[in-house]
Amino acid sequence: PPGRKVLIVYAHQEPKSLNGSLKSVAVEELSKQGCSVTVSDLYAMQFEPRATRNDIVGCLHNSEEFNYGVETWEAYKRGGLSNDLIEEQKKVQEADLLIFQFPLYWFSMPAIMKGWMDRVLVQGFAHEFPNCYDSGLLKNKLALFSFTTGGSEEMYAKGGISGDIRYLLWPMQHGIMHFCGVKVLAPHICFAPEYVSEEKRKEMLIAWAQRLKTLWKEEPINCSPEWYFE
Amino acid sequence: PPGRKVLIVYAHQEPKSLNGSLKSVAVEELSKQGCSVTVSDLYAMQFEPRATRNDIVGCLHNSEEFNYGVETWEAYKRGGLSNDLIEEQKKVQEADLLIFQFPLYWFSMPAIMKGWMDRVLVQGFAHEFPNCYDSGLLKNKLALFSFTTGGSEEMYAKGGISGDIRYLLWPMQHGIMHFCGVKVLAPHICFAPEYVSEEKRKEMLIAWAQRLKTLWKEEPINCSPEWYFE
Repeated sequence: PPGRKVLIVYAHQEPKSLNGSLKSVAVEELSKQGCSVTVSDLYAMQFEPRATRNDIVGCLHNSEEFNYGVETWEAYKRGGLSNDLIEEQKKVQEADLLIFQFPLYWFSMPAIMKGWMDRVLVQGFAHEFPNCYDSGLLKNKLALFSFTTGGSEEMYAKGGISGDIRYLLWPMQHGIMHFCGVKVLAPHICFAPEYVSEEKRKEMLIAWAQRLKTLWKEEPINCSPEWYFE
Repeated sequence: PPGRKVLIVYAHQEPKSLNGSLKSVAVEELSKQGCSVTVSDLYAMQFEPRATRNDIVGCLHNSEEFNYGVETWEAYKRGGLSNDLIEEQKKVQEADLLIFQFPLYWFSMPAIMKGWMDRVLVQGFAHEFPNCYDSGLLKNKLALFSFTTGGSEEMYAKGGISGDIRYLLWPMQHGIMHFCGVKVLAPHICFAPEYVSEEKRKEMLIAWAQRLKTLWKEEPINCSPEWYFE
């Protein structure tokens, strides 16, 4: 609906890829609805995935023994995080919906996107004990993981060789998003696009555009072990 | 035992951290046993986590549309991967045991270590369909995930707010190591070292050294959904 803000965190090297097209479809469809859409194109930004001392501007809280979690927390409170992190945090703060668009690498997100999680979602900004899970600091936001796989749907079935695809969603959806208080919409998965016809890939794009039309009416999943493991 | 080769892939910024000490304890104890130990200290190496065109030396197989998986597979076959990847692959090839030492970041490994997985374990080297899972190309090797957590053991119990710690081991142990044919030893977990006494942290180091003394007699876990989810 008009006025809603969406941040798409996108991790693919190739604009012509299916991931690139899925991202473009989302920008187009959500803009058409009147949403304001921002894209963090991580490879194009050469986004830094490594959590290092460079993320803190100025002096350290404890320069004797570097603790990344403590240092970024302290830096956040005094406005001393590096500019690239402040920029991403602003985008997250303003967004009603976060869409993560990526190819599945090793049952998870590519390292460049994991680095975005590691570095952007710092304590004080996204969570601050006891404000985690349902009372995480990013509550009232939604997240959706949209990704492509190498393996087929059969491999990722319960009893399949790679196990139920939901097993691998636990760390990303529960461990990251739910921990920060973000409500999770059902994932959007395109299985094995490299092994299907061009026509089938076009259908995948149409299905995504179709889902986005009614996305704001969707209810979040019940992000508890039952959803993943039963 | 004398002659066994161990690669420790280590991801912590601070040598004085518990992770740094756990790494040193392993180097010391395994060397004392007569093993030959190599450490990949990822932050010290400023290891590159991003999967990009730079990983391929020379021309691309398809320069019209960049596909990282296909390009690294092709480059591997013709000896055209970047030097940092060739170095890491040599270390893996020679190792009987891989130890991954890291602090848990967001229910997973830090991005710099995820980048090691994404970039080093390329098709052709670590797997090549149908050589995956029990027939993965790195069979006859062992792996062990050794990590510290922020949350307590109670939070990571079955029924705890963060769910059974085994849930989050699935992508790392099954999705990566088992996929490559590597057999997995039980993980070594130090819960919440930041919230315990200095004495308790020393006990953690002693327990790790103790375990390493009989490590080569251990049987791998049965890496199937039952181990993780039942």
